[in-house]
This record gives sequence, C-alpha cells and structure tokens, in this order.
Amino acid sequence: MTATSSSGRQLIGADLALAGIGKIARDQHVPAIETSEAFTLAATVSHSGGLDGMENHAEIEDLIADRPDIGIVSLTMPPLPRFDYAMKALAAGKHVMLEKPPGATLSEVHKLQRLAQAKGVTLYASWHVKHAPGVAAARAWLRDRTVTGMRITWHEDVRVHHPGQDWIWEPAGLGVFDTGVNALSIMVEILPVEVHLREADLKVPGNRQMPIAAKLDFAGPGDMKVTADFDFRHEDPPTWDMEIDTTDGPLKLLDAATKMIVNGQEQALPDQTEYGGVYHRFAELIETGQSDVDLRPFRHVADAMLLGTRETVADFHHED
Amino acid sequence: MTATSSSGRQLIGADLALAGIGKIARDQHVPAIETSEAFTLAATVSHSGGLDGMENHAEIEDLIADRPDIGIVSLTMPPLPRFDYAMKALAAGKHVMLEKPPGATLSEVHKLQRLAQAKGVTLYASWHVKHAPGVAAARAWLRDRTVTGMRITWHEDVRVHHPGQDWIWEPAGLGVFDTGVNALSIMVEILPVEVHLREADLKVPGNRQMPIAAKLDFAGPGDMKVTADFDFRHEDPPTWDMEIDTTDGPLKLLDAATKMIVNGQEQALPDQTEYGGVYHRFAELIETGQSDVDLRPFRHVADAMLLGTRETVADFHHED
Repeated sequence: MTATSSSGRQLIGADLALAGIGKIARDQHVPAIETSEAFTLAATVSHSGGLDGMENHAEIEDLIADRPDIGIVSLTMPPLPRFDYAMKALAAGKHVMLEKPPGATLSEVHKLQRLAQAKGVTLYASWHVKHAPGVAAARAWLRDRTVTGMRITWHEDVRVHHPGQDWIWEPAGLGVFDTGVNALSIMVEILPVEVHLREADLKVPGNRQMPIAAKLDFAGPGDMKVTADFDFRHEDPPTWDMEIDTTDGPLKLLDAATKMIVNGQEQALPDQTEYGGVYHRFAELIETGQSDVDLRPFRHVADAMLLGTRETVADFHHED
Repeated sequence: MTATSSSGRQLIGADLALAGIGKIARDQHVPAIETSEAFTLAATVSHSGGLDGMENHAEIEDLIADRPDIGIVSLTMPPLPRFDYAMKALAAGKHVMLEKPPGATLSEVHKLQRLAQAKGVTLYASWHVKHAPGVAAARAWLRDRTVTGMRITWHEDVRVHHPGQDWIWEPAGLGVFDTGVNALSIMVEILPVEVHLREADLKVPGNRQMPIAAKLDFAGPGDMKVTADFDFRHEDPPTWDMEIDTTDGPLKLLDAATKMIVNGQEQALPDQTEYGGVYHRFAELIETGQSDVDLRPFRHVADAMLLGTRETVADFHHED
C-alpha cells in the first residue's frame, strides 16, 4: 500500500463509472454498487450500450471528456483490453479499481502502479474471493500459529462456469488458473508466511494454449509445504476447499471460504458478499489515500507458467 | 536498491567465497575476482572438489560453520538449486551475489529480498551483460532523447553455446530465454521508458519443454514499440544486435553491446569486461550498504511464458 494525496473524508454516494458491462458487471458489480453507501453508479462505459436507463459512453475517452466530475472508475473487462482503460483513467486523475487478475502481464501492473503513484490516486487490484466470509477469520486464527502444511483442492466444471468462453483458453485467459488464482489469492491472504513454487505440472489440451488442470508444490519456511490441485474437468458441484495443518490442529476452509472448521468445530462467520467487501475496501482505500496492489497471486501463476512441466491431454471442446 | 546496515568503508582484498564451480565460474568469475582489487578468493563451495590449491567446502553449511570470517558469497550455480544456498548465506548474515537469472521463480527472489533487508546485508542480482562496454554509453545517449522504436535480434547456435546441456531445456533452464534475458537486461538498462509485453510467439521443439525461438512485441508510451527476435537455431557467428530509433536518429548496439554506432558514426567505448563490471558493482553495493535486485528482465520472461502462444516445431537433439 502506498499513500496518495487523497483527502481523507468519508465517501457517501460518490459518483462512480463502471466500464465493461458483461456478465460479471451485471451479476456482481452493479448489485454491490447499488447496495454500497459509499458509491453511486453514475455512468457506464460500454461498446454494447450499457445498462437500461443508465448514462453510457462508448469509450473511456468520452467519459473522461464529458464527465470530468466522475473521479472514480471500476474496470471489469478482461485483462488484455483493460490496460489501456486503466492507463487513460489514471492519467486523467481517476481512482481506479481492477477486476482480477490485475493484468495480462506483471510488467503492465507495475506501470499502472507507477502512474497511480505519480498522479496521487488510488489503484486497487481487487481479488474478490479475499472477501468471502471465512477469509478474515482464517487469517486471524492462523496469524500467530505455526502452519506445517496446506492442501488446496479447487475443482470445477469449466463448461458450467465458463460456458462457450473461448477467451479463457487463450494465453491471457489463464485456463484453469482463472479459477486457481482465486485459491492463491486466499492462500496469500491467510498464510502468516510466504511460500514459493518449487514444482508444477500443467495439463494442456492438445487443441488449446492454456492448462485445463495443474498441480503445484510450494515451499514455505523449513519443511512447510503447500500443494494445490486445480482442475476444470470436474462435474458439478465444484470443490473449492483448503485444509491448513497447524501445531494447534487443522483449519478447514470449505466451499470457497464460506465455511470454516477449526479442530472439527464449525465456526460462525459473518454474513457478507464478496463484491460487497470489494467495494467496501475500494471506498476505504480512497478515503485513506492508499493503493492496494497485491501481485502475489498472479506472480505465483506466472511462476507456474515459467517452471511448469507441460503434458498434452485430450482436446477440449465446449460440447462433449 | 534498499539500504543495508553496512559500514561504508572501501573494500580492499575482502575475503569472498565462490559457490558452484562449473564452466561459468572457471571462465568468468575466478579471473574477475583475481583481477579485482576489492575481493580475494578465499574458499569455494563445490560437491566436485573446487579449484586446484583452493580451500573447498562440500556444502554451504560447512563454509558458514568453518569460516565465519568470510562475509561475502558469490553464487554461480543454476537457479533451481541456488535458492537454498542464497537463503542459508543470507540467514548467516553474508552479502550475496546471484548469477543471472536471479531465480527459478519470481516469488523466491522476493523472499531473498525480504531476508536480505531483514539481515541488513547486500543482495545483488547480477546481469553480466549490463556491464558490456556499450551499455552505459547507450544509456547515457538515450537518457534525454525520445525513443520511437527498438528492434532486438538475438540469434545464436545453442549447440555451440550450450553444448550437450539438457538443463537449459527444462523449465527452470528457460530455453532460448537463457540468452534472450541478456538482451532484455540491456533493454531495461538503456531505455529511458518502461515497456510491457503485448504479444509473444514461442516455438517449442516437440521433444522439449522450453522454447527454441521466441518473438516478442512490447509496448512503450504512445506508439513506441519494441520487437525482440530470439533464436537458438542460428549458425555461428551469433547475431547479438539492437537498433534503437530516436527523434535524433538511430543508435545501434552490436555484437553483445561491444560496438555502438550513433547516426552512422562508430563511438569509442571503454575497455572493460562484463564480469569485471559485475564484481566492481558488487563491491560498490557492499561499500555503500545497498542491494540491487532488478527483476524486470526476468519478469518480462515470465510475462512471455504467461502471454505467449506456443507452436510446436521440430524436435531438438544435441547432435544433428
């Protein structure tokens, strides 16, 4: 986190523009903004017309030119096109939020960080699943404990969760790491120590560029190990679980961190939505003049692509 | 660069241990240390006996235990095994130099940086070709100019430069990026602006994991572009050239930055060796209590592995 020149006052109903009106914007961002006290949805940026009854601009340049009063922009489009929107919004002095992953490359996110710092505005690289109900509780429980190992199992059916989406199989789409990076964003958030990748096996369909499954081995201090098993070839319901061993017993974080079990006892968790937490955090960062760009989950994916051994597996088609 | 707690006095003949006694150590590190005023080679660490007439320790732990008076360690082994040596040496309070690339993953280098900072010692991630005769001159000439484009051509015969070496084809070996990252280390050193990867084509032999050739397209500010063409399938002599276009005319940096031509005029360059420059820089960092970990060249390689489109090409064998 780095300080910005922001004012420190509390945001109440501050005008925000949402750019990129696809499935994730409609399903998650719009409802979260509508229930947020901090923000008011004031305009959209979309080539395809935006939302019914809402002011829309086809290009980010139009928004910047026509609505200089809107100082906050949230960007939901895929990472490859997102960079130019982010550079233009930051250059115009807007506070900017990025969907996950924060870029198509690591280097471009470093560029955005430098520009945000130079302009004295907030850059927030969001990781929505960090705001799942069990994450803060798991982090708090693990903070002063000795973690001896961790196992991540993150299996889902790509045909259910990304129906017909070809972009996910292109390089910037990350393949199974599109969901795996969510698990890694929880991992870095809750572990009290840092880990690094020692070995990775990537299974890549013969007709695709990106892996459909991956196994990762991370090393922490001493003999501490983390294994992660990501797989897109899984029938619903998904398995989104992690088990953390400590010298005080095991902690399980299940169903995408919506359920937490410590030493066999299920724990009470707060009632909160991921995107509610994301916009709450964005408001907090603007109010306190900070940026929050946690590159670690994405860096672990880049490390897996660097260090991974690829094996070709059966072709993938959207229809069986 | 981050400050350490070092003393600020000039190094003269300071004892240094060299760990990893292979081809690069014998050909480059030992002669550079022998001609350095700052360092004296006091011991080696090697499983295979080290150098004739020189004190050798089989393990880094033995060196640390037996020679607590040696406070400086240079690590030349490949990146995958190097991490453990670096962690142990830093944990023991030694100043540490890393050969290029600085790790097998980006995340592990961040771990080393944190440990070096916590211990108040120098960590130097060296990039030897940054010390080629033309690099500082090119950087100085470009500093206040407007660069409009850059083309990198980095072709060599892998059979000549890595004879019989299988490790280079394994994931941490980087394939053609083992030499390509040298070009990228010059690129980040001389360009007055930052660039990021927009597209990459990787050619991977059917029987290998890592690319034998790569074409990269980087974007800088505005319309500024950098293209890089790396190829291991090239008969000697190698081509290690870069051409930089500016609004004041072109600069050419040829033959691995040993020759510089500005607007058609060849420029006089200092008489210096790459590894002489590397050890000079290491001494300077220790003397001034700094670290120097430039991750940008390696991050660009990770970005290429993330974003690159792979094409399978003919199998590679060491013998035709």
